[in-house]
Amino acid sequence: MDPESFLDLANQVIKLKMYPYFDVAHSLLCALAVREDLGAGAQAFSRKHPLSCWLSTMLVIFAGGMVVNGLLGEPILAPLKNTPQLVIGTVTWYVVFYTPFDVGYKVAKFLPVKVVASAMKEIYRAKKVYDGVTHAAKLYPNAYVIMIIIGTLKGNGAGFTKLVERLIRGAWTPTAMETMQPSFYTKASLVASVIFVLDKKTDLISAPHALVYFGIVIFFVYFKLSSILLGIHDPFVPFENLFCALFMGGIWDSLAKLLGKGQPKEEAKDAKKTN
Amino acid sequence: MDPESFLDLANQVIKLKMYPYFDVAHSLLCALAVREDLGAGAQAFSRKHPLSCWLSTMLVIFAGGMVVNGLLGEPILAPLKNTPQLVIGTVTWYVVFYTPFDVGYKVAKFLPVKVVASAMKEIYRAKKVYDGVTHAAKLYPNAYVIMIIIGTLKGNGAGFTKLVERLIRGAWTPTAMETMQPSFYTKASLVASVIFVLDKKTDLISAPHALVYFGIVIFFVYFKLSSILLGIHDPFVPFENLFCALFMGGIWDSLAKLLGKGQPKEEAKDAKKTN
Amino acid sequence: MDPESFLDLANQVIKLKMYPYFDVAHSLLCALAVREDLGAGAQAFSRKHPLSCWLSTMLVIFAGGMVVNGLLGEPILAPLKNTPQLVIGTVTWYVVFYTPFDVGYKVAKFLPVKVVASAMKEIYRAKKVYDGVTHAAKLYPNAYVIMIIIGTLKGNGAGFTKLVERLIRGAWTPTAMETMQPSFYTKASLVASVIFVLDKKTDLISAPHALVYFGIVIFFVYFKLSSILLGIHDPFVPFENLFCALFMGGIWDSLAKLLGKGQPKEEAKDAKKTN
Repeated sequence: MDPESFLDLANQVIKLKMYPYFDVAHSLLCALAVREDLGAGAQAFSRKHPLSCWLSTMLVIFAGGMVVNGLLGEPILAPLKNTPQLVIGTVTWYVVFYTPFDVGYKVAKFLPVKVVASAMKEIYRAKKVYDGVTHAAKLYPNAYVIMIIIGTLKGNGAGFTKLVERLIRGAWTPTAMETMQPSFYTKASLVASVIFVLDKKTDLISAPHALVYFGIVIFFVYFKLSSILLGIHDPFVPFENLFCALFMGGIWDSLAKLLGKGQPKEEAKDAKKTN
Repeated sequence: MDPESFLDLANQVIKLKMYPYFDVAHSLLCALAVREDLGAGAQAFSRKHPLSCWLSTMLVIFAGGMVVNGLLGEPILAPLKNTPQLVIGTVTWYVVFYTPFDVGYKVAKFLPVKVVASAMKEIYRAKKVYDGVTHAAKLYPNAYVIMIIIGTLKGNGAGFTKLVERLIRGAWTPTAMETMQPSFYTKASLVASVIFVLDKKTDLISAPHALVYFGIVIFFVYFKLSSILLGIHDPFVPFENLFCALFMGGIWDSLAKLLGKGQPKEEAKDAKKTN
Repeated sequence: MDPESFLDLANQVIKLKMYPYFDVAHSLLCALAVREDLGAGAQAFSRKHPLSCWLSTMLVIFAGGMVVNGLLGEPILAPLKNTPQLVIGTVTWYVVFYTPFDVGYKVAKFLPVKVVASAMKEIYRAKKVYDGVTHAAKLYPNAYVIMIIIGTLKGNGAGFTKLVERLIRGAWTPTAMETMQPSFYTKASLVASVIFVLDKKTDLISAPHALVYFGIVIFFVYFKLSSILLGIHDPFVPFENLFCALFMGGIWDSLAKLLGKGQPKEEAKDAKKTN
C-alpha cells in the first residue's frame, strides 16, 4: 500500500459519519452487554422490570457523555436530547430483549454480526476519545490530566457507570469498580487519550494528525478482534508489570525482602496463607 | 356544575399560590415519611443523630428540585436559597420529631389533618410536574424524553433520592430502587408529564390548558384520597399488564411456551420453584 | 503581646500564601490518611492497585473543591486544572506509598513532622472555610444555610467523600457516613462557617475581620495539637449534650418518662438490652 493512498484512507476515516450505522452498532453491543450482565434471568427480568431495563440500557449507551457532562458541570441529561440516537437505542434495546422467539438476540449474538458491530464500535470509541480530549482541551487548555480523564471516560464510560447501572436494576456490587481492575477498554482509552494529548499539545509526535488518529483506530479494532476471535484479552499486562516493578515499589520491595527488612507483618501473613 | 364556572375554577387552580400553606403541607408529609421510614426507632434516632435527621428530611423536602438541578447542570443546592421554604421545612421537621409528648407527630398523624395535607400535596405535585416540564421544554425544546424525565422527577423526586436519604441516615438499601418497583406517584407523575408534553408540544389535546391542568390535579387528589381512605393503591396495574402482554413479550412468550420453544432454562427453574 | 502587633500578625496570617508549603502539608496528611484507612494491607494494596490508590488519594486531596463544585453546578473536575497542586499531590502520594524501605512514610509519621504538617493543614483549612463562605455569599447573598454548608464542606470535604473514596478502592461502608457521627473537623468547620457568616452578613461581631479570622485559625490549630499531643478529641461534646437536652427533646423525654408516658416500646427494648 503506497503511503499516499494510506494517508487518503486515514483522512477518510477521520471524516467518517457516525450516524446512523455506528450508533446502531454501539447501541446493539450495549444492549447485549446489559443482557449478558443480567445473566440467566435476563429474560424474566426484562418482562418484570421493563422500565428499569430500559433505563439501565440507556445509561450504558449514553454513559460516556453523561459521566463527562457530570464532571464538567454540564447537564447530565443533555446527551438524551439527541432524539435520533435515543430512538436507535430504544429500538435496539427492544430488538435485543423483546423480539418473538428471541430472534433479535440470536441474530445479534451471531458471530459475524458481532464481529462487524464490534469493529464499528471501536471506530466509534476512537472518535469519542478524540472528541473528549478536544472538548476538555477547549475548556482547560493547560490541564493535561483533565484531558486524559475526560478522554478515558468518553472512551469507556460504561465501565465507570457499571455500579449505577446495576443499581438501577436493583443490584449493588461495590467491589466491581473499574478503578480496581481496569478493563482493556479503559487502558486502551487512557493510552489513546495520552497520545491525542501529546499530538495536540506537544511537538513530540511528528506524524500528521490523520495518521495518529488512524493508528489508534487500527489499534482499537485489531485488539478487539483479537479478543473476540483469538481470546487475547489484555496486551497491556506485561508493560504494566514492568512499570510496577520499576516505579511502584516492585524492585525495592524485593530488595527489602532480600535484606530481611520491610513489611515483616505482611510477609508473615502471606507466609501463613501460603502454608 | 356549568362549564363556564368549571373553567373559572380551573383557572383559579392554575394560579393558586403555593406559599405558604402548600409548602407546609408538603413539608409535613415529608417529615412524616422520614419518621415512618425510620420505623420503631425513629424517636431514639432523632435524639441521637439530629443533624443526620435534619439533613435527610431536607433532602426529602427539596428532592425534586435538587435531583432535577443535578441532572440539568444547575446548582444542586439552589433550592435551599429559598429561605422561607427552608424555615417552614425546619419548623415542621422540629414539630414532627421533637415536640413535648410527641404532640406534633400525633396531630400530623390525625386522619383529617393527614387527608387535607395529602390533598394539598397532590395539588403541589401537579404544579411541580408542570413546572418541570415547562422548564425542560425551555432548555431542550425538542427533547420530549428529557421533558418527561424532568417532569416525573419533579413530581416524585423523593422516590428517587430514597437511597441517598437513607444513606445520610447510615442505612443502605440498594434493592429499594424506585426504578425497580415504581410507586404510584412515579407512574402518575410520568403520565401527567406525558399529558403536559402532548398539551404543550402537539395539537392532540384540544381542551384548554387550564382544563388539562385541572384534570390532572383532580386525578392526583382523587387517587391519593382513594389510597388513604379506601386502600386502592395502584390503578395503573391492569393497564401495565395489558401493555406488557402486548409489547413486552408477554404474548410471544406464551406462544413460545405453547410451541415448546424459548427459554427452556427459565421454565425449568420456574417449574422447580412452583413444585 | 501588645494589641497592635497582634493585629499585625493577624493581618499577616490572612495574607499567607498557601502555595507551595501548605499544599505540601495538606497533601501529605491526605496521603497518610488514605494509607491509614487502608490498614495493614496498605502496602500490598498500593502495589496491586496503583491507579485506584492514586485516584482515591487525589479525591481526598481535592475533596472540598470537588464536592462544593458538584453542589454549586460548577465543573467537578475543575480543581484538577491547578497543575502545580496536582504535581505536589502526586509526588507526596508517591513518597508516602512507594519510597524504598518505606522511608517516606516513616518520615511523614515522625511526630515533629506530623505536628508541623497538621498545624499548617489547620491554617489551610481555615482559609478554605473562609473561601467557601465567601464564594457561596457571592452566588447566593441571602442564603445563609448554603454559605454554612459550603463552608463546612470546603473545610472537611474528605469526611463527606469518604464513601466514594473507599468505593474507588472497592470497599463500601455505608454506615460510615459523616452525617451520622460528624467528626471534630466537621463540627469545627461548621462553627467557623457560622462565625464567618455572622461576621460577613451581620453586625453582631464587632471585632475587625482579621482578628476573627486569626481567632479561628488559632482555635483550629490549638485543638488539632491538643488532639495529637494530649488526646483530647472533641471539645464540642458537652455543648452538644446541653443543646440536645434543651432543644432536641432531652428534657421533655425525661419528663415523659417520669410521668410514665411516651415511647413505652423503646423503653421496654432498652430495658431488655440493659438486663
